[in-house]
Amino acid sequence: MTEVIADEGCVFCAIVAGKIPADIVLRTDTVIAFTDIHPQADVHIIVTPTTHAYRNVTELAADPALLADLVTTAGAIAEANSGGEFRLVFNTGEKAGQTVFHVHAHILGGDLSESRLA
Amino acid sequence: MTEVIADEGCVFCAIVAGKIPADIVLRTDTVIAFTDIHPQADVHIIVTPTTHAYRNVTELAADPALLADLVTTAGAIAEANSGGEFRLVFNTGEKAGQTVFHVHAHILGGDLSESRLA
Repeated sequence: MTEVIADEGCVFCAIVAGKIPADIVLRTDTVIAFTDIHPQADVHIIVTPTTHAYRNVTELAADPALLADLVTTAGAIAEANSGGEFRLVFNTGEKAGQTVFHVHAHILGGDLSESRLA
Repeated sequence: MTEVIADEGCVFCAIVAGKIPADIVLRTDTVIAFTDIHPQADVHIIVTPTTHAYRNVTELAADPALLADLVTTAGAIAEANSGGEFRLVFNTGEKAGQTVFHVHAHILGGDLSESRLA
């Protein structure tokens, strides 16, 4: 997937394009990471492909290399920001809390050992 | 990764081997899924590789095909059990709530739209 695909109404595409400001944590050729504007943990970073090709993680699994790239990047971000311990969350669908339909993972760090998963 | 790897002290390896009973939801050549014994949502299913090769999702990303296989299977399980809408959670490290160090994802279904991620 080298084709650049963007969706005009997508907030994450606007961040990728620099049209909406964000606290960018890391950017590679394939993914971009930025802090969540409504943090739910001490560390809360979004990591998402730079292209608008997949709506959710199930669709992203059709591109194993990109999925692995996103997860590897998430691990590196967690290593740098929360000692390598982190929760990685993909929400699929509105009932699961997904609000942006451009696949992304939430990286959550801090002490979550007593927190619930849902 | 076709080699069968098991760890004697691992509860998930024991489930894979049939040594510990579990409510098996689905089994493929590479992954197995079973209901969580301490459910945190209306639907709470664990999906994990049948081999004990990777401790966490960052390690699993070294095997993109297996990672994609696990995610695709999770999507199919969510399709069958929660209308395709689900939260997929990978915990890495004790602070993130990981208790079994055989990589696995939590599939959470039901109405999670108001729930927190951590």
